[in-house]
Amino acid sequence: MKMNDFAQPALAETLPFAAWMGAVQARMDQALARLLPSPGVAPARLHEAMRYATLEGGKRVRPLACFAAGELAGAAAERLEVAAAAVEMIHAYSLVHDDMPCMDDDVLRRGKPTVHVEYDVATALLAGDALQSLAFQLLAEHRLADDPAAQLEMVKALAVASGSRGMAGGQQIDLESTGKALPLPELEFMHIRKTGALIRAAVLLGAACGAALATDERARLDRYVQCVGLAFQVVDDVLDAEASTATLGKTAGKDSKRGKPTYVSAMGASRARQFAEELRREAHAALAPFGARARRLGELADFIVLRKF
Amino acid sequence: MKMNDFAQPALAETLPFAAWMGAVQARMDQALARLLPSPGVAPARLHEAMRYATLEGGKRVRPLACFAAGELAGAAAERLEVAAAAVEMIHAYSLVHDDMPCMDDDVLRRGKPTVHVEYDVATALLAGDALQSLAFQLLAEHRLADDPAAQLEMVKALAVASGSRGMAGGQQIDLESTGKALPLPELEFMHIRKTGALIRAAVLLGAACGAALATDERARLDRYVQCVGLAFQVVDDVLDAEASTATLGKTAGKDSKRGKPTYVSAMGASRARQFAEELRREAHAALAPFGARARRLGELADFIVLRKF
Repeated sequence: MKMNDFAQPALAETLPFAAWMGAVQARMDQALARLLPSPGVAPARLHEAMRYATLEGGKRVRPLACFAAGELAGAAAERLEVAAAAVEMIHAYSLVHDDMPCMDDDVLRRGKPTVHVEYDVATALLAGDALQSLAFQLLAEHRLADDPAAQLEMVKALAVASGSRGMAGGQQIDLESTGKALPLPELEFMHIRKTGALIRAAVLLGAACGAALATDERARLDRYVQCVGLAFQVVDDVLDAEASTATLGKTAGKDSKRGKPTYVSAMGASRARQFAEELRREAHAALAPFGARARRLGELADFIVLRKF
Repeated sequence: MKMNDFAQPALAETLPFAAWMGAVQARMDQALARLLPSPGVAPARLHEAMRYATLEGGKRVRPLACFAAGELAGAAAERLEVAAAAVEMIHAYSLVHDDMPCMDDDVLRRGKPTVHVEYDVATALLAGDALQSLAFQLLAEHRLADDPAAQLEMVKALAVASGSRGMAGGQQIDLESTGKALPLPELEFMHIRKTGALIRAAVLLGAACGAALATDERARLDRYVQCVGLAFQVVDDVLDAEASTATLGKTAGKDSKRGKPTYVSAMGASRARQFAEELRREAHAALAPFGARARRLGELADFIVLRKF
């Protein structure tokens, strides 16, 4: 399949999920390579580190969520790739900072040395900082919605999802809970912020690139993404507990070794798998009234819960 | 003077600069305290660290620049305080990250322990990250311009000023130039990014809160702020070389001790003072055609160049 075939909805709709996912991933690699600063522009080392942190890696779950929600709202791929790139840059920056010695002190990410190992800690700090700025720059400088006021809402949604009541706040709670056995509601409170908030932002931004949804449609989409965001973390915990480092592409078993509370430590692997399955079913139930428009969102929920890596 | 008197232009215009500055600073302290997350909201420690990093300190040069430019464009103080708070949060986050052990490893800032000393390094990292997100949230969620498209331009301006081709890029060049004798053009290239970009953003955002300027007026304002931004850094270098730690409220003489290139090391203190004075005159020349509307901008240039701390 050629890359530009992807932009033709009639063709895209007939693709099996794996092929659709591959096409989105390939499209995102190209978009990110184009939207990131050129490594030839000064300061070159910083730009290289930003590209290293963002390119060639990851399942691109957040871009997939953005494109799947965009399909629901009939959004153009040219808009979706920019919105998805902004979300992915926030995600990439959070991984760079999370891997730093003062946080998780991890040396391996996506099968490669982490940014502070490949470059240095100060460059990793600044590359993460600059990736966050660039995410907001992208949302402001490209036309992503017909109404600029709606586009300001997109900026706000990403900022809230990234900040102290979203992802950064979840990481703070994660830091503070190491060595503690968190009750399930607090574990959920943490993960809704640490992982769920940004996946939710990916879905909201993808939908915002297209035609406006009705209030009840937005509520259903939100219910869907709350289930999927939480399921993503539950499955991550199960995989982290069970997989080997080679399969996972990052240090496996690290959460339990560090005494971090996980769904596996809180409820056991078997019950955690069952919980993820319940969330998957609830996600599908929320999508049901949308019909075929929500096909990719449903498939994405299946992928997130049933993946092996 | 009561705080709300400040919003009455007729009164504000009659204030001597020192009183105007004090009023803006007091207003900003109140605005920041209101716009930062409450320390009672979870995660409390993160929110406390964000407030610690931002409140009670600093000359608020960027907010002063924002308000002074707002006066030129007839902007409402209610808009200016939000725009200025966004810029100040970017500045505060950059100080928190800059003080971290992997960067300047500094323990004193504004006469108080730095954030990573008062809290811990991981919390400092996340507080800085979350302050950056909050800055963009503020620019998106408050009505700051009559035209939402113009407000998206404000988001873009702050993002560009903060990112790899602005402040973060300047810090990277600063890191890489330690121990080197930079030629003057490269020293200027660094400082235009490291310090100048954010002061420029403060002026552009302040002007954008008011009536649109003509193209030639924008060019003059830009010329003004390029001179003032550079002068600010030149004077900082002179003060850092000459002042004591007690006067400065931060570790004095640290740049030269670390082998960082400064205007003093590049051209000597006497010539650096003279250069700052030339920039001050050039800034005034750029403002001249504006007449009385640019009074505060002119006074601010004087304050920046003639200050003793």
